[in-house]
Amino acid sequence: MSSVFGTIFRVSTFGESHCPAVGAIVDGCPPGMELGEADIQPQLDRRRPGQSDLTTPRNEQDLVTILSGVENGITLGTPIGLMVHNRDQRPGDYEEMQGIPRPSHADYTYQVKYGFRAESGGGRASARETVGRVAAGAIAEKFLLQRCGVQIVAWVDAVGHLEAGAVDMESITRQIVDASAVRSPNQLAAKAMAELIAGVRDNNDSVGGVVGCVCRNVPVGLGEPVFDKLEAMLAHAMLSLPASKGFEIGSGFSGSRMLGSAHNDPFVQKGARLGTLTNYSGGVQGGISNGEPIYFRVAFKPPATIGVKQKTATFEGADAVLEAKGRHDPCIVPRAVPIVESMAALVIMDLLLRQESRVRGGNIPEVNSPFNKGA
Amino acid sequence: MSSVFGTIFRVSTFGESHCPAVGAIVDGCPPGMELGEADIQPQLDRRRPGQSDLTTPRNEQDLVTILSGVENGITLGTPIGLMVHNRDQRPGDYEEMQGIPRPSHADYTYQVKYGFRAESGGGRASARETVGRVAAGAIAEKFLLQRCGVQIVAWVDAVGHLEAGAVDMESITRQIVDASAVRSPNQLAAKAMAELIAGVRDNNDSVGGVVGCVCRNVPVGLGEPVFDKLEAMLAHAMLSLPASKGFEIGSGFSGSRMLGSAHNDPFVQKGARLGTLTNYSGGVQGGISNGEPIYFRVAFKPPATIGVKQKTATFEGADAVLEAKGRHDPCIVPRAVPIVESMAALVIMDLLLRQESRVRGGNIPEVNSPFNKGA
Amino acid sequence: MSSVFGTIFRVSTFGESHCPAVGAIVDGCPPGMELGEADIQPQLDRRRPGQSDLTTPRNEQDLVTILSGVENGITLGTPIGLMVHNRDQRPGDYEEMQGIPRPSHADYTYQVKYGFRAESGGGRASARETVGRVAAGAIAEKFLLQRCGVQIVAWVDAVGHLEAGAVDMESITRQIVDASAVRSPNQLAAKAMAELIAGVRDNNDSVGGVVGCVCRNVPVGLGEPVFDKLEAMLAHAMLSLPASKGFEIGSGFSGSRMLGSAHNDPFVQKGARLGTLTNYSGGVQGGISNGEPIYFRVAFKPPATIGVKQKTATFEGADAVLEAKGRHDPCIVPRAVPIVESMAALVIMDLLLRQESRVRGGNIPEVNSPFNKGA
Amino acid sequence: MSSVFGTIFRVSTFGESHCPAVGAIVDGCPPGMELGEADIQPQLDRRRPGQSDLTTPRNEQDLVTILSGVENGITLGTPIGLMVHNRDQRPGDYEEMQGIPRPSHADYTYQVKYGFRAESGGGRASARETVGRVAAGAIAEKFLLQRCGVQIVAWVDAVGHLEAGAVDMESITRQIVDASAVRSPNQLAAKAMAELIAGVRDNNDSVGGVVGCVCRNVPVGLGEPVFDKLEAMLAHAMLSLPASKGFEIGSGFSGSRMLGSAHNDPFVQKGARLGTLTNYSGGVQGGISNGEPIYFRVAFKPPATIGVKQKTATFEGADAVLEAKGRHDPCIVPRAVPIVESMAALVIMDLLLRQESRVRGGNIPEVNSPFNKGA
Repeated sequence: MSSVFGTIFRVSTFGESHCPAVGAIVDGCPPGMELGEADIQPQLDRRRPGQSDLTTPRNEQDLVTILSGVENGITLGTPIGLMVHNRDQRPGDYEEMQGIPRPSHADYTYQVKYGFRAESGGGRASARETVGRVAAGAIAEKFLLQRCGVQIVAWVDAVGHLEAGAVDMESITRQIVDASAVRSPNQLAAKAMAELIAGVRDNNDSVGGVVGCVCRNVPVGLGEPVFDKLEAMLAHAMLSLPASKGFEIGSGFSGSRMLGSAHNDPFVQKGARLGTLTNYSGGVQGGISNGEPIYFRVAFKPPATIGVKQKTATFEGADAVLEAKGRHDPCIVPRAVPIVESMAALVIMDLLLRQESRVRGGNIPEVNSPFNKGA
Repeated sequence: MSSVFGTIFRVSTFGESHCPAVGAIVDGCPPGMELGEADIQPQLDRRRPGQSDLTTPRNEQDLVTILSGVENGITLGTPIGLMVHNRDQRPGDYEEMQGIPRPSHADYTYQVKYGFRAESGGGRASARETVGRVAAGAIAEKFLLQRCGVQIVAWVDAVGHLEAGAVDMESITRQIVDASAVRSPNQLAAKAMAELIAGVRDNNDSVGGVVGCVCRNVPVGLGEPVFDKLEAMLAHAMLSLPASKGFEIGSGFSGSRMLGSAHNDPFVQKGARLGTLTNYSGGVQGGISNGEPIYFRVAFKPPATIGVKQKTATFEGADAVLEAKGRHDPCIVPRAVPIVESMAALVIMDLLLRQESRVRGGNIPEVNSPFNKGA
Repeated sequence: MSSVFGTIFRVSTFGESHCPAVGAIVDGCPPGMELGEADIQPQLDRRRPGQSDLTTPRNEQDLVTILSGVENGITLGTPIGLMVHNRDQRPGDYEEMQGIPRPSHADYTYQVKYGFRAESGGGRASARETVGRVAAGAIAEKFLLQRCGVQIVAWVDAVGHLEAGAVDMESITRQIVDASAVRSPNQLAAKAMAELIAGVRDNNDSVGGVVGCVCRNVPVGLGEPVFDKLEAMLAHAMLSLPASKGFEIGSGFSGSRMLGSAHNDPFVQKGARLGTLTNYSGGVQGGISNGEPIYFRVAFKPPATIGVKQKTATFEGADAVLEAKGRHDPCIVPRAVPIVESMAALVIMDLLLRQESRVRGGNIPEVNSPFNKGA
Repeated sequence: MSSVFGTIFRVSTFGESHCPAVGAIVDGCPPGMELGEADIQPQLDRRRPGQSDLTTPRNEQDLVTILSGVENGITLGTPIGLMVHNRDQRPGDYEEMQGIPRPSHADYTYQVKYGFRAESGGGRASARETVGRVAAGAIAEKFLLQRCGVQIVAWVDAVGHLEAGAVDMESITRQIVDASAVRSPNQLAAKAMAELIAGVRDNNDSVGGVVGCVCRNVPVGLGEPVFDKLEAMLAHAMLSLPASKGFEIGSGFSGSRMLGSAHNDPFVQKGARLGTLTNYSGGVQGGISNGEPIYFRVAFKPPATIGVKQKTATFEGADAVLEAKGRHDPCIVPRAVPIVESMAALVIMDLLLRQESRVRGGNIPEVNSPFNKGA
């Protein structure tokens, strides 16, 4: 189990679907930032189950408590403990499935890997583990916004075969995204998506989708080649999410079909910095942010737990038919929107702090720095 | 700069396009494995430039020397130093481009991030840095093959709009892949791809492509949820490669368009283990290998350095026209094949060693273990 | 702030002296171990303040709650969340000291480093942060005892100039240690130490001391040269404790005064393994455990917060006289005993899991391993 | 094997006593620093064997080559490859010792841990592995001196029972230290130490010693509580050195015998910063540098390889007498001086870069920063 993410801004998460609490420790948050539960709760509210009839009916208020690291509403620079109680636990729902691993779920692999698995729900493989990610991500987001004006906005880019269509990456906001329960910015498409999800839900089935995300105002220079390039860290973060199957940045897979003469983004002066006319690069060149909007897409498979009868096998290999119980999302992407934003924030935050050390570390004299008073 | 990859099997790489040498240190390789330069050279040969007229004419033999960690042809368990000299350096080729950052290359972002950049070629952003990855990956591959029979085979799945078509993931081998210089298993498609690349090259342009990869016989249980899931580590590894823009595992983006009832992989007994009838999961469930073939695809953009005239800007923002010099690949995917294999091997190797600790760490008595003699 | 310790068995801690809770996340604990709060509470009880009149009168019951990672009393292999509420907070005690940094305490360095510091008590520099370490260490200890029979026993080896005298490292137990409140095994010495501490306390002063520790039954082979040698990790762990100033293993500083012919430990067969006749090495050779008892000593300075009037300066540099308030230990070593044991357990546990991967990683065929079923 | 050290300034080392080369990769060195082999060679010369008749007669020039990371004499911010060839290898010297593990050396523990060990010399347990540390440390030292004026000076503080006596930590320099081959600043003591070492050498025996070290002008604020405190990282670094058995900072073990009223360092204004009148803390409070000189001592045992006949056992446990061959130091501390300095530099450098990120990471607006041009 590896539940620590980041090098300087390091997040450790804990919690299964049916234990007393889920949460995180955020280590390395810079001191001196105003922080309270109210900064964190909104993204948890966007993530929480039971928020609409398109999501699982499990009802959790997901109220967060800050346990440490903040005094008088200001971060101390010490680890921030974050906790959310699990309230609506119904472990009994899962009893009849004990002998049959859910197809395409983690029951079988957890059993083999650990020799044990949580009897109830998905345990640590439940999307419930993302509560800690979102709480931590909200802290990173606040810092990034205050420090550099970074804006991170994700949206539902596709549900099944239905696509959101063109999205204006310069102007899209969370308000626009949240105008529909399905969180897709084009209202016509959003309505069709909601109907598709409702239909799938009524059939006890599930459907996949794609989340798009843009990060604006990210400073030039973030990303640590060669192994911790910005896109590598984003891909790592996104493919660590439950049910994700793919990631592409900028032109992505469609860029593989282009010629260099068409794909290259010509440079052009933009205010105080060099910008690019087009942005097939997706805001990243050589693994380092170039000041243009960073945009990427994440593919999510249909949730594995479905009520439809499935022919499969027991743990012992005997033929079996599974009709899964429990409360589950028919489509994960509406709730994945804040989770994708949170992971993007964690990646950018950590790379920002890693880069900060280098900039001051340069040979530019820093004679007046209070930091050097002792030198 | 972050040039260390892995937790237990840790690889540090070094080297730019025009410095004396490139290479790597492999820390954490298990002791007792036979190892010599001959185990490493074949993959370096498949990676090296100048191997066909579809690649850059830069001519490097890329002969590797093992500097440490091996005695009498056996690994000691100590760090393995690996070095390849840069021979065919022509820094002069780049002089006239000094003032103009190449569009979609790393010249600009390196300059801003570090305040300095290599004057010649791509420096650390050159694909030349992958020599160290491939040398290290060859060691991981040998161990995985001997220990578990793991077979890793990559191929060119697309060049521009040309696709390889169906690939039999159970039977494809490197011999089949290497039957064409373009490294695509379907010979008809390979021929068309080679013609496309040759045409693009003759136009001083470049073209993108896709590499597919399958890993067979990977033991059940590899991958460390929640952050270091197998697919997260693979995505990290692949998006750290120069010019990569996307990653998908199993059904990938197409899986996002499916219903759960169609996408779920039913379990079925396969010999001594539980297997699945279909493999939309791509060999991974809940971030952990399930014993089925792991397959994934990596999208590469067209190389940024092209001879076609490009309207762009100087570092200072003045209008400029760039006609890039230097020796470059018109299409990176044929040479990316062994690089993708190497990174896959590094990921699986590290996760194997991480899992090994857990299995023995369990509470099963290990009374006869020589390891416990002192207990 | 770096509040994560360990590579595979990774502990993240959180909490200051006067925030709502302190605690830890233990990531990487092997699955399948019986675990409940009752396994953790005893060491917290030995660490807690207010346990005798030789310690701070701050009264905390320090009852631990397991938040996650355990189901039906068995570890799942997932992160174990641990929480202890802070009950007896009296931030008001510190108000009059706000302008004067306590000499030899962390007030000044925290203020400069972070630009902010906890107004109350020592914040994160308080020994209160060790609650998380001890809770995590108790889990490691249980595993090590069950898996290899490892026994870790620490004791007070000196208080001021008073020394415990010879200690039988083969037979000393926690019961023997806890026979006196001062936790020194020689009862005559313990009585004198208690009197010394009581006298120092009555003078509003403080006194330093030394903790000794032995780890028995540690398997041969633990420690990761060259940087993570066993003694290097122990030294790291011990010097990370509040108020510690020195560490020595085996012969330590006295070994520096010896000749090699006297200091070398001759090998001799001991049951199934090779042992040594003497143990100047302290159970470690070349950074790796050799099967003999590992023993080391940790020096602690006198606590910095004292009621005696001290001439010093304000944060602004003006002359000042400080008569510190608050509740503090006159001597830290009696309560440091379980903390030293806990850190030793964390080090050995992590190195055990790191070594386990190597042993199975070797080229010994593992044909019957269930782990390889998929191979 | 763990051969990587540091979080941002990360050093990977490689090499055994009798392989083709030893060396290191330095990842995370800031760009823009002038660097050439001439910056590194002096410390290697101070470390190299054969420099006086007090050291091993093995004769190595230890000339370093920079393989990467530097262009036109300026660091690029990319990994710096460093290599030193092993020239004077005499593996044959060790043949007759193959069956008998040297007492107090690493032969036995390496054999059990890895199942294999280098047949010649100490392999990776040889002090030869420190070549990479010293080469890397020289780079860190240069940066620290240029950036903050940090001065690191170590000296021989004791050989056997002979002590150097009082050392003026404000004024001691490497020139003073190097005035004697034994590297102890008091010339009378140095002469006696040299005679002691010569006598021990003539008896085919060995003797231990202590190295002292001071780091001046270290900025206030370095050290990452709670686990990576400055003294914890120094202790980790020093106890990772071959033959080291103890570490103490500031008052160290003697501080454990003091009262708080005597041990506390009163604050007093010193120029632009708050300083302390005394320095029992050793320049560190709460794990963070306070601007005063950081000083510490490291105990080294007598080298294990001695020519004196030793009654011991074979690997199989049979009685044996060993008269070790090979070329070895009768006393390690004169050559340990630059090694201790190098490890101190690596620790301070890494903690400096970790702190830099925090300082800029604060909420102070940085509107004119070129780094924020893109924001």
